[in-house]
Amino acid sequence: MKKFLNDPDTLLREALSGMALAHADLLVAQFEPTFVRRAARPAGRKVALLSGGGSGHEPLHAGFVGTGMLDAACPGQVFTSPTPDQMLAAAAAVDTGAGVLFIVKNYAGDSMNFQIASELLELENATVLVNDDVAVENSTHTTGRRGVAGTVIVEKTVGAAAEQGASLAECKALGDRVNKSTASMGVAFTSCTVPAAGRATFDIGDDEMEVGVGIHGEPGRRRAKIRRADLIVDDLLTAIVRDLAPGAGSEVLLHVNGFGGTPLMELYLLYHSAERQLRSMGLKPVRSLVGNYTTALEMAGASLTVTVLDDQMKALWDAPVHTAALRW
Amino acid sequence: MKKFLNDPDTLLREALSGMALAHADLLVAQFEPTFVRRAARPAGRKVALLSGGGSGHEPLHAGFVGTGMLDAACPGQVFTSPTPDQMLAAAAAVDTGAGVLFIVKNYAGDSMNFQIASELLELENATVLVNDDVAVENSTHTTGRRGVAGTVIVEKTVGAAAEQGASLAECKALGDRVNKSTASMGVAFTSCTVPAAGRATFDIGDDEMEVGVGIHGEPGRRRAKIRRADLIVDDLLTAIVRDLAPGAGSEVLLHVNGFGGTPLMELYLLYHSAERQLRSMGLKPVRSLVGNYTTALEMAGASLTVTVLDDQMKALWDAPVHTAALRW
Repeated sequence: MKKFLNDPDTLLREALSGMALAHADLLVAQFEPTFVRRAARPAGRKVALLSGGGSGHEPLHAGFVGTGMLDAACPGQVFTSPTPDQMLAAAAAVDTGAGVLFIVKNYAGDSMNFQIASELLELENATVLVNDDVAVENSTHTTGRRGVAGTVIVEKTVGAAAEQGASLAECKALGDRVNKSTASMGVAFTSCTVPAAGRATFDIGDDEMEVGVGIHGEPGRRRAKIRRADLIVDDLLTAIVRDLAPGAGSEVLLHVNGFGGTPLMELYLLYHSAERQLRSMGLKPVRSLVGNYTTALEMAGASLTVTVLDDQMKALWDAPVHTAALRW
Repeated sequence: MKKFLNDPDTLLREALSGMALAHADLLVAQFEPTFVRRAARPAGRKVALLSGGGSGHEPLHAGFVGTGMLDAACPGQVFTSPTPDQMLAAAAAVDTGAGVLFIVKNYAGDSMNFQIASELLELENATVLVNDDVAVENSTHTTGRRGVAGTVIVEKTVGAAAEQGASLAECKALGDRVNKSTASMGVAFTSCTVPAAGRATFDIGDDEMEVGVGIHGEPGRRRAKIRRADLIVDDLLTAIVRDLAPGAGSEVLLHVNGFGGTPLMELYLLYHSAERQLRSMGLKPVRSLVGNYTTALEMAGASLTVTVLDDQMKALWDAPVHTAALRW
């Protein structure tokens, strides 16, 4: 295993401490229980947005804590769900009296633990469950579709709405609507190594890719031979657009997400290919996001995410954001 | 070779086209000859900053074109210098009459071709040669030290000064001063594969790292067994601080740069370790940059860069910047 590491048991604490040190103006990391929150509490009352999940997907979620996006994030160990005590402590720290909304990727452990926290906090109808991955209906770690890179789109748009004073019910409805308007699918070329395990999560041949891979390296639709980038993009977009069934001429956001081990040059090549293919399908890519945002450690590969936009979502996407990983 | 690729010969054009499409508000890509420039010309006269170099280091340099940083970038093929015709065309496109300054990483091909362009344009004393890598005095592709991740610090600070109306001579002097105040060194755990070559640039054992590696995978000081992250950081910082010889209590910028294949979690762990070690050396890290900014395709590894700051450099670092890869 080749990693910058002192001890797998202290990796998460050291990484979060480094993140808080590097972004001291933005973030505070707390431990036992572990969560990351904004350095400054919002001035007035606003809905507090809280997300979380296993680590190893950085910058998701802690990199999206800040003005215009999340109020706090609860990171678990690598590829391991956070626990309800983290969510309770984080919620207590960021609640301004306007309510707390959980944004949760659909994985069995995450949804169970956020559900427990939700019950303990007596929150009702205050969770947006993201399930944008169209690759498989049920998977290794989920009942129903997985939540993947579309989570960033949900967190950004709902974050902007919360900042602008939307109510808890409005934030919840918006999150569900953005999730329904968003679909993703990815491919992996290599595996990744969880530090505590010390070996590759899965085996894959030198000329193979996993089509529809999950963000923990879990299987997707099929194992296939590597093909030209344009053909991979065609395959992913066909599945995505079939799922979304957007009206002709719809405006869309196109997000090319790297899983961690693919150079930016290739991600921009994918953007070029996907942009042209969406246009040939009669769709209009009017917003973009290209980079490593929802990663699987050092896995080589990428996913495409498409969100069908309306004017409200466009305005919320464009609204100011100030986080470690997304800023405009 | 596992890459998102249609044809190695069209990779650069497709990637730059994708970049320009994804950032149409910011960037324009032109071809034959190839360069990337700001979408909007500055309103008044300002010194035009132009950089460039082989591709495969993205977001360097095109990702740093925009307000407060570069005016144009000339990308060569992967790990191949750009040619003087690119620099002439880019200079013509961005010159507002206040002069053109080249910011060049010290590699034989880059410095030769920028030198030719400089002579053809009859520019005098208008190149900042960046040579921040303390690993080796001469190397595979250089006479003298290599220019690596410190280039981003030079481009950001000089970019801010140019935006604020500094003269060509002031920009050149500032660039030289920031370069002299900046030192870097890195380690690689894996090699990278140039698409046109189709095979790994170098071989490395399962438990080995290249200490002092260059950003093309070229050899550094020595091949060593992988060690704890804290010991790697100690090794790099000792070399860096010995070179800089900063006064006790100096304020510094600490930049942890990933080479492309190392997860963000590990980069933040490195930041945590390096920040503490700098403090124990009596230095004060007051500015930070953590992420994949000067990459070597998908190489796993990272470098540390330290810049000894003065008040002017701090203010220039903090000044607004609006590029694809750096924005505040």
